[in-house]
Amino acid sequence: MRKYQEMTKSELLKEKEQLERRYKEIREIGLQLNMARGKPSAEQLDLSMDILDVIGKEDSLLAEDGTDCRNYGVMDGLPEAKRLVADMVDCKPENLIIYGNSSLNIMYDQVARAELFGVCGNTPWSQLDKVKFLCPVPGYDRHFKITESFGIEMINIPMTADGPDMDLVEKYVNNDEAVKGIWCVPKYSNPQGVVYSDETVRRFANLQPKAKDFRIFWDNAYVVHHLYEDKQAKILNILEECAKAGNPDMVYEFCSTSKVTFPGAGIAALATSENNLADIKKRLTVQTIGHDKINQLRHVRYFKNIDGIKAHMAKQADIIRPKFEMLIDMLNKEIKPLGIGQWINPVGGYFVCFESLEGCAKDIISKCKEAGVTMTGAGAPFPYGKDPKDSTIRIAPTYPSMEELRQAAEVFVVCVKLSSVEKLLQTSESTILEVEAEEVLQ
Amino acid sequence: MRKYQEMTKSELLKEKEQLERRYKEIREIGLQLNMARGKPSAEQLDLSMDILDVIGKEDSLLAEDGTDCRNYGVMDGLPEAKRLVADMVDCKPENLIIYGNSSLNIMYDQVARAELFGVCGNTPWSQLDKVKFLCPVPGYDRHFKITESFGIEMINIPMTADGPDMDLVEKYVNNDEAVKGIWCVPKYSNPQGVVYSDETVRRFANLQPKAKDFRIFWDNAYVVHHLYEDKQAKILNILEECAKAGNPDMVYEFCSTSKVTFPGAGIAALATSENNLADIKKRLTVQTIGHDKINQLRHVRYFKNIDGIKAHMAKQADIIRPKFEMLIDMLNKEIKPLGIGQWINPVGGYFVCFESLEGCAKDIISKCKEAGVTMTGAGAPFPYGKDPKDSTIRIAPTYPSMEELRQAAEVFVVCVKLSSVEKLLQTSESTILEVEAEEVLQ
Repeated sequence: MRKYQEMTKSELLKEKEQLERRYKEIREIGLQLNMARGKPSAEQLDLSMDILDVIGKEDSLLAEDGTDCRNYGVMDGLPEAKRLVADMVDCKPENLIIYGNSSLNIMYDQVARAELFGVCGNTPWSQLDKVKFLCPVPGYDRHFKITESFGIEMINIPMTADGPDMDLVEKYVNNDEAVKGIWCVPKYSNPQGVVYSDETVRRFANLQPKAKDFRIFWDNAYVVHHLYEDKQAKILNILEECAKAGNPDMVYEFCSTSKVTFPGAGIAALATSENNLADIKKRLTVQTIGHDKINQLRHVRYFKNIDGIKAHMAKQADIIRPKFEMLIDMLNKEIKPLGIGQWINPVGGYFVCFESLEGCAKDIISKCKEAGVTMTGAGAPFPYGKDPKDSTIRIAPTYPSMEELRQAAEVFVVCVKLSSVEKLLQTSESTILEVEAEEVLQ
Repeated sequence: MRKYQEMTKSELLKEKEQLERRYKEIREIGLQLNMARGKPSAEQLDLSMDILDVIGKEDSLLAEDGTDCRNYGVMDGLPEAKRLVADMVDCKPENLIIYGNSSLNIMYDQVARAELFGVCGNTPWSQLDKVKFLCPVPGYDRHFKITESFGIEMINIPMTADGPDMDLVEKYVNNDEAVKGIWCVPKYSNPQGVVYSDETVRRFANLQPKAKDFRIFWDNAYVVHHLYEDKQAKILNILEECAKAGNPDMVYEFCSTSKVTFPGAGIAALATSENNLADIKKRLTVQTIGHDKINQLRHVRYFKNIDGIKAHMAKQADIIRPKFEMLIDMLNKEIKPLGIGQWINPVGGYFVCFESLEGCAKDIISKCKEAGVTMTGAGAPFPYGKDPKDSTIRIAPTYPSMEELRQAAEVFVVCVKLSSVEKLLQTSESTILEVEAEEVLQ
């Protein structure tokens, strides 16, 4: 196999013809596959079924402090739930609020509350002329939707292999008072699988924000979501680093058990400083009487402690690792030699992020769609859904079965090749036209 | 027994002496009782224990439409959960969104969203100079806290035996564009137990609001919370009445199973028009991916249908009815003949609302506190915690055991008497002084 870029026009045309034939065959199968959302598979969910039996009618529903979990109360979470989650995200139990089933909802709430009431006594964002958020790209579409819905101006920050481009982050945060936040997925980032380096975390902690109410929105969604027992990423503790750097109140850290037990029926939490907690609780007490304590108890009794979570996540990894490996293998074999795509091999998280030739992502996704394979929408990993290079495709390999994934990946590979050939032919066409035009002019 | 108001000063002084002795005795017992919050008792919660067993690891978690309830999705609730809740609140399933475990949180969210984004395309409330809410009083403190937290001006509307004073409601709503909402608990109101009459509901439905974005916040919290099988209140269907009156979008109706199964671990819902639902869902999709579907399924499988809920609530009534009756009996025997208090005998809901002599509520509550009986804070049933007459005391009889309640009610009765005697003596004192002063002047 040779790189497409090194092929002559006639070689490309011949390749195109073969690919078109293959694509036609695939379309005729009438597949219905989905690699769009980062959802666990049924097999993964089956691993958690025992949690449904740990609290039955014969069991006590008293928490360790005597609280009857069946009744009202306990706004910020059971002590034992705090301990469990604290061990999961590597923070202190007293820095936590345990919420309901959705960390996304906590993030929305944090932004909404900042808009309505301000952060720690500062002016409500809704009363400011301009509020900006930094958005490392590619990133998580649902983060960007939150800030977009509030009319917050979003600024793209390119990702590197070590995390967001910190020169740029520092430039914006330390000089522009309108910059109030940044969205981060520090471990196994969505969608690239990037792990923030220690230097990146330290540079975050040592930011000197122009805005007193600047906050890092640290979505530690994949904190225990390793693919390999022996290649587990460990990131620095952002709360500790911020405290050391004299910025104790600069971070809101989010996590949940959505992809540990059951999405939508897990527990979610916020970890932050004492000041921030007081600021939040003052409002939270008006918002609700308390979250589902029975479900908190269920998680505590099921996992017992962090070792329980770790053992559970190792089983999850055993199920999804082969999927990631098959996908990566196929990309290595079919795409890499052709020079028409790039990706990072993730060691955790839920995604593979494919970088196509410029201007091909939309077309590849549309070709996949026509062949019955739904991918995450083009542009989704960017603010306003706009991928400047039209080259980023988020692949979510966890939900389909191995066999479905194999089929879907085969479709994907054909679509990438076909779209790339078409792009290169179009480019060479326009190059030829340009050359001809130049000749005429001379 | 004679009315205190008809006693001479020396009779009152004698009565006071006896009461002080009795009060001293009570204080020395060192009770620790609580009639403050409307919480179900452990015995009531025991009724729902079987719900913890209806979904175990051997059970299917597929909803009737095939949705795997263990995974992401279904923002607005399972079809079968909508049907169950629709039958409970007497609305159509298609008018519902099923949320998480807290109807209070839905109400907060509705106000917050109106502040941030406006209602159905109207100006966000946060951008208006003045927003006002009507607050039927006495009412629910947590409602008032929500509007207070947003700086919404709250206007007291006196309650009658048929619901809020509708002359006043019409006057405000139909003439003042700043009036954007009203808090209502239409059935077994908190705290008086008032049931809105058909005329009241119809007058609500036929309001001609000056503000296009005026909404009735209809908290149907006690919709199935009857005390008597044969005295079940039925209120008109507000959504239907509003539609008939040409005001289909004027109501947000809230409900939950908090006091049906487990407070904080039930399911909550919003019922409203198609237009309002569309307006809400546009934002809700940014707020969360979905609520706890497993818990929705749990409730559906446990109750099966509305008859299951009704049978369950009849058992709850059997537990709490004797408590209400004992309390009312004691008030009838000890307070009524003395002319120092009034109340409505509730046939449902969670409270008895005691009206003391003017200027006595704070003192009675404080006397109770000193004797070890915690009552709902004075003023709580009023906006800003200000009871204009200082006479309203919310009594919550459900949580204590019968024996505890008897003790607490005895303490309460003594405190009411003592405080009333003191008040009357003080008044007669000042009347005497006034009379003397007048005599001097003449």
